[in-house]
Amino acid sequence: MSELTHRAPEYIRAIAPYQPGKPTSELARELNLDPAGIVKLASNENPLGMSPKARAAVEKALDELALYPDGNGFELKSKIASKFGVGLDQIVLGNGSNDVLELIARAFLQAGDSSVYSQYAFAVYPLAVQAVGATGIQVRAVDYGHDLVAMREAIRPDTKIVWIANPNNPTGTLARPGDLLEFLELCPPNVLVVLDEAYTEYLPAEKRSDSILWLKQFPNLVVVRTFSKAYGLAGLRVGFALARPEVADLLNRVRQPFNVNSLALAAATAALDDLDFLRETVAVNKAGMMQLVAAFQRLEVPFIQSHGNFIAFHVGDAQLMNRFMLERGVIVRPLGGYNLPNTLRVSIGTEAENARFIAVLEEALAG
Amino acid sequence: MSELTHRAPEYIRAIAPYQPGKPTSELARELNLDPAGIVKLASNENPLGMSPKARAAVEKALDELALYPDGNGFELKSKIASKFGVGLDQIVLGNGSNDVLELIARAFLQAGDSSVYSQYAFAVYPLAVQAVGATGIQVRAVDYGHDLVAMREAIRPDTKIVWIANPNNPTGTLARPGDLLEFLELCPPNVLVVLDEAYTEYLPAEKRSDSILWLKQFPNLVVVRTFSKAYGLAGLRVGFALARPEVADLLNRVRQPFNVNSLALAAATAALDDLDFLRETVAVNKAGMMQLVAAFQRLEVPFIQSHGNFIAFHVGDAQLMNRFMLERGVIVRPLGGYNLPNTLRVSIGTEAENARFIAVLEEALAG
Repeated sequence: MSELTHRAPEYIRAIAPYQPGKPTSELARELNLDPAGIVKLASNENPLGMSPKARAAVEKALDELALYPDGNGFELKSKIASKFGVGLDQIVLGNGSNDVLELIARAFLQAGDSSVYSQYAFAVYPLAVQAVGATGIQVRAVDYGHDLVAMREAIRPDTKIVWIANPNNPTGTLARPGDLLEFLELCPPNVLVVLDEAYTEYLPAEKRSDSILWLKQFPNLVVVRTFSKAYGLAGLRVGFALARPEVADLLNRVRQPFNVNSLALAAATAALDDLDFLRETVAVNKAGMMQLVAAFQRLEVPFIQSHGNFIAFHVGDAQLMNRFMLERGVIVRPLGGYNLPNTLRVSIGTEAENARFIAVLEEALAG
Repeated sequence: MSELTHRAPEYIRAIAPYQPGKPTSELARELNLDPAGIVKLASNENPLGMSPKARAAVEKALDELALYPDGNGFELKSKIASKFGVGLDQIVLGNGSNDVLELIARAFLQAGDSSVYSQYAFAVYPLAVQAVGATGIQVRAVDYGHDLVAMREAIRPDTKIVWIANPNNPTGTLARPGDLLEFLELCPPNVLVVLDEAYTEYLPAEKRSDSILWLKQFPNLVVVRTFSKAYGLAGLRVGFALARPEVADLLNRVRQPFNVNSLALAAATAALDDLDFLRETVAVNKAGMMQLVAAFQRLEVPFIQSHGNFIAFHVGDAQLMNRFMLERGVIVRPLGGYNLPNTLRVSIGTEAENARFIAVLEEALAG
């Protein structure tokens, strides 16, 4: 047996898979808790659920599930194209943005290539790079955020992709639009720049980059978006990339023909129209951010200022604190996998969910 | 721009993407037809739709779509484990079996490796092999089916995977269990044998292989199944592989953590219990097979004897015939991409759908 599995490439055997947030059902099983009493603030999900318009679209599409999805995603792409002012041939749909990120790695990288990302950047970048046998170049963070100058300087002749998460998950840091623009202007044009904006909808207008307009100016830019966060469709899996047609064409070559399921296509198409839901989502997030920040300040718990729908905070022994919270039915995310062994990340929930988290945190600190 | 895209590996730029069956909506747009009048017999879908139990499970799961799916698929895996008598650690879930097939290629193959498949075998095998830069070895078919002896002889020292589709899509051919067993006995134990049984549910018991029992005997066997065909869940995307834990572990390392969406997990779990639906599906397929075979014989249209839910048949000019059918609202699948330029494949539909196809075929032959 060992001979067989050892024929798999060394870089595959070395992969340590992504550790997702613990599902409520799993915690309930493990600790024999009532699932209804568990608060999950571990995966940056939308506490409001999904848009009612998206839900209606899903219900309408239930009769067609024995048929394959439209592999070209015509309706969703048409909606994205008109909303963002891009051509249909500039869009690549993914089974969540995770899928899109992997498509980018697979389309451009092979063994012998390198790829640049920041310390503490989203864990899928190093994983996607490793899974194709390429070399990851991790650039030291500054204040838990991307050091764009150092990242530019880290680019080597064999570098094909630079990954930028903005805001970054799990730290919540944000690059200034001017700094991003400078990065793009100075980056070699034959290096792909992946700007992952999974949390961009939570930003106030003045902090947002004109990333999609930049596509006209920078043929090496790829903007990645998701429906899993502000749009509340994490369970359905849909994300997308916007790029120049030549780049999108390459990504579509490695895309599975039916990578996005029928209900995800229907829901995402409807969700893009539901501006009321998006506004409410952003408002609830803003209020929750203030609620959590006030608690951290009151309890003197240091945290990283965040621009997403989550906050990373530092505790003495995160493993112990995590255990304490799990036993009380509150799921947050340990960041040990990011080499932040003293840090936890809490997603911003509803007011009641946040209050429950704060109460348990307070209890732990008092103990 | 060209410099950037030319940095993508040569084997990526050379990919000719999979050509899916034309969706009804696309044909309706192109030819300005009423979608309600179109019969799609192009993608081997279940004409009965999905299992009512699966549908109920989907409806029940609609409230949870803002949450990420259970990345470990605990409930579905538990159901698969008990139904097929395997351990949880032997199961790999995929976003359709297409995803599983790609995971296998990515976990084991890299540039410099080779992989063996049959002429006329399912198109995803060569695509998955090419997408990782490995070399495909195509073995000449016998009577449109796999020549297992020649495939065994084609294995080279650098061969890591052999793909066997049984029944094979698009030709419908079936290998005898004894021949498969002999193949496994004589295949080098360090070469993975992927037995893709997407259509196995349509087989009468006496023609089915004991493939899952064989897992105990052959550590290099991977059995792949799908919920897209007999289970009627093509639109939701879910399939799985069964393998020895060591192999399953490698595949799970390259699997996206949330590759299967929540509704697919719920639907598949319920579908496995709906034996009535499965029985009806098989009965309708058997009746439709007889209906179509009788028509081909009456009209003297040569066809390939099929063990799936589809039949490949030969016509003088398949492109012309395909066009004729499309204009009359009947979608079948041209097999030009399989180097069968004179062959079309029709999926077995309901009695009425089959009759509509037969009428249009007859009209074409008379014209």
